[in-house]
Amino acid sequence: MTRPATPAIAVDAIIEMADRPGRPIVLIERRNPPHGWAIPGGFVDVGETLEAAVMREAKEETSLDVTLKCLLGIYSDPARDPRGHTVTPVYIAEAHGEPRAADDAASLELFDPHNCPALAFDHDVIISDYIEYRERGRLTPLRF
Amino acid sequence: MTRPATPAIAVDAIIEMADRPGRPIVLIERRNPPHGWAIPGGFVDVGETLEAAVMREAKEETSLDVTLKCLLGIYSDPARDPRGHTVTPVYIAEAHGEPRAADDAASLELFDPHNCPALAFDHDVIISDYIEYRERGRLTPLRF
Repeated sequence: MTRPATPAIAVDAIIEMADRPGRPIVLIERRNPPHGWAIPGGFVDVGETLEAAVMREAKEETSLDVTLKCLLGIYSDPARDPRGHTVTPVYIAEAHGEPRAADDAASLELFDPHNCPALAFDHDVIISDYIEYRERGRLTPLRF
Repeated sequence: MTRPATPAIAVDAIIEMADRPGRPIVLIERRNPPHGWAIPGGFVDVGETLEAAVMREAKEETSLDVTLKCLLGIYSDPARDPRGHTVTPVYIAEAHGEPRAADDAASLELFDPHNCPALAFDHDVIISDYIEYRERGRLTPLRF
């Protein structure tokens, strides 16, 4: 039975630090191209659910055990990843404790979502959607 | 730059017939394995957004021009598709007029969501989630 080629699938996690004032979020500085600041995440392995994948990637890059809160949205613009068409569901998660950069994260910092640095991929769009969620409760916008 | 193998990605549409009493939904009888009744949908092409893909697949299988309402959820259990691990975002859509089966749909019928036939894949779970949405407004459940 033939299966057609489809876009790659990755997952990202906006991790809120629940034990810090203002609930800042964790951003990483990427070790691999494309370089720059980004929301933690990575490719989904064949055989794992999205929920397992995003908790694994969050742990690998930030050393945090995260609790998933909800799905923010799915990002699928063919031009959003210079490495090739990648579809990325983005989850909102929370964590406690001390994040430490590892794996594809060369470093990490906590940011107020209104004061993020310039971001790789379409992560500025994702952060805008996240601010909409945080201020107005809006989730999973569709895009045409 | 290497890109790892990731699950295949497909999209499905729960299409509500907005001009019929009780807003019945469209199910198709699949022409290709796995056979049986199913929610319309299919694999995403490289280079198209999920929103474009689900409107294309709905049109190909039901001949309807659908309007997307919202994302119901994303289904990613590795065992959900006997052809191999497939991640499927499911959208809720609405349409007017007369559906006609085409492409991978050998036939189609309209159903009250509470009285669907046995369904292929994990589509019974998806219909249960859809009933939760329709009766209680709940969207995008996470699964662990």
